[in-house]
Amino acid sequence: MAEPSTLDPAIAARLKHDEHGLVCAVVQEDRTGEVLMVGWMDDEALARTLSSGRVTFWSRSRQEYWRKGDTSGHSQHVRRVQLDCDGDALLVRVHQVGAACHTGARTCFEAGGDLPVVVGAAPEGEPAGEGPAAGEPAGNGPGAAS
Amino acid sequence: MAEPSTLDPAIAARLKHDEHGLVCAVVQEDRTGEVLMVGWMDDEALARTLSSGRVTFWSRSRQEYWRKGDTSGHSQHVRRVQLDCDGDALLVRVHQVGAACHTGARTCFEAGGDLPVVVGAAPEGEPAGEGPAAGEPAGNGPGAAS
Repeated sequence: MAEPSTLDPAIAARLKHDEHGLVCAVVQEDRTGEVLMVGWMDDEALARTLSSGRVTFWSRSRQEYWRKGDTSGHSQHVRRVQLDCDGDALLVRVHQVGAACHTGARTCFEAGGDLPVVVGAAPEGEPAGEGPAAGEPAGNGPGAAS
Repeated sequence: MAEPSTLDPAIAARLKHDEHGLVCAVVQEDRTGEVLMVGWMDDEALARTLSSGRVTFWSRSRQEYWRKGDTSGHSQHVRRVQLDCDGDALLVRVHQVGAACHTGARTCFEAGGDLPVVVGAAPEGEPAGEGPAAGEPAGNGPGAAS
């Protein structure tokens, strides 16, 4: 990390950083639900993202902050940021201007493309968005398999 | 990694692993677009995910393979897997049975919840899903800021 972070200490305390001080940030287009890209944030990149309305990452390859769109014009405007249950991933919902991917593709996953899969089938009668069935345990504690 | 991988070498060659041999996997509900969780895969976990119809992760905390749903019944059935432009992230579209999060929440981001943000606004007249504007460069090469 290049400088002391301005992140709210109460938020910083909830983050589970990797050994480089980073958490992964999944960026989703708020209007369509498309997953656009995955980037990385240290505390200062998250602080800037939360406070400025623009998404800022930490570039692992260049070892510098990177405010999305400053070079390309393809900026990401923050709509919502959520932390996951164990503090090591962020979901950043944005309005994306132009292409999210540096290749010019709409998303980085369009750019990389499909891997060949055997498609799996859920048991019959499983509706979309179903919650836990009645009588099932609510969970197995932090870090448990589920 | 616990054992030699059965992953197609052509796919393995496209992955850019972290120092632990892992890539991050964003799991999205295929029917609703919800981002459910983020997990980690080594080559063998990806091979099992691509070939079995069921999502398998590598658990960093337990250092073992973890086929989602084997403990909880909340399995993830594979619909589509895409690799990103630089090979270090996967987007796995699934049919999720029950809750994706071990807390019992529908998604791990519902469980963790919202961080306070200043909401950003894109320039006026930017439609959703817009591609690169005519005359803009298509990109800045691999690893370039955008």
